[in-house]
Amino acid sequence: MLDTQLILAANQDFYRAFEQQDLEAMATIWSKGTDCLCIHPGRPALRGWEQIQMAWEQIFQNTERFRISTSIITAQVSGDLGYVVLVEQITQMIQGREVTIQSMGTNIFENMSGSWYLVHHHGSPIMPPASRPGQQPG
Amino acid sequence: MLDTQLILAANQDFYRAFEQQDLEAMATIWSKGTDCLCIHPGRPALRGWEQIQMAWEQIFQNTERFRISTSIITAQVSGDLGYVVLVEQITQMIQGREVTIQSMGTNIFENMSGSWYLVHHHGSPIMPPASRPGQQPG
Repeated sequence: MLDTQLILAANQDFYRAFEQQDLEAMATIWSKGTDCLCIHPGRPALRGWEQIQMAWEQIFQNTERFRISTSIITAQVSGDLGYVVLVEQITQMIQGREVTIQSMGTNIFENMSGSWYLVHHHGSPIMPPASRPGQQPG
Repeated sequence: MLDTQLILAANQDFYRAFEQQDLEAMATIWSKGTDCLCIHPGRPALRGWEQIQMAWEQIFQNTERFRISTSIITAQVSGDLGYVVLVEQITQMIQGREVTIQSMGTNIFENMSGSWYLVHHHGSPIMPPASRPGQQPG
C-alpha cells in the first residue's frame, strides 16, 4: 500500500475509535510520545497521551452515541510524516438530544518502526455564516 | 541551521507578514501548489493560493493594525515535511476599537528545492471557559 493510503487508513481507524467510543483502540492509534498534541474545538492544546486520554474518556462518558462522517480534503506524506485535512460531521446524542456540528480537522501522523501513529489532532468548529465575526484571521 | 530552526524561521516570517499586513511577503512564504490550504478561525478551508490570497487581502483591508505574539508548543520535521503548533495572541485594531483573541495554530511546511514553504495553516479560536459548550470533541 502507498504511504498515503496507509495514513488514510490510520485516519479512518481514528474516527472509527471516536465513533465507537473505543478508548483501547484510541490508545493503539495515538503516539505515546510526550510531544503528541490534541486540540478539541474551541480549546487549548492537550499535551501527551495522559492528558489526551483523560479528555477522550470524559467525552465518551458524556455522550450516549456518536455518528461521524468525514470528507477528506487532502492527504500528504513525506518521509516519516504525513497529514490529512478533512471536514468532520459529528452527531452527538447527549441526554437524549441530538446535536450535529461540522468541524475542520487536521491530523498529523508519524511513522515509527513501520507503523503510522497519530501525533497531532487539531479540530475546530465551522461556525454558521450568520454567527461569524467579520474576517477574523489567526 | 537545523531543519527545525528553518521551519521556525519560516513560521516567524509568516507571522511577521501577517502582522505587517504584507501581502507580497505572504506570497513568498506560501506554497503556490493547488493543494495548499488555509483555515481561519470558525471557517471552512480555503484551497489554493488564489483563494488564500484573496482572504488575506480582505483581512488586511478590514484591519488598521495588528499586534501578534506567539508561543511555540512544538516544531517537528521529517524528510520534506515539518510542522509547528503554537498559541497565537492576535490584537486587531478595527474601526478604532482594539480586540484581542487567542487562537491555536497548526502550520505545516514543505521543503521544495531547498526552501521551506507554508502548505497548510489551521487557526482556531480558544473560547473562554465560560462560553465553551460541554466537552465537544472533533
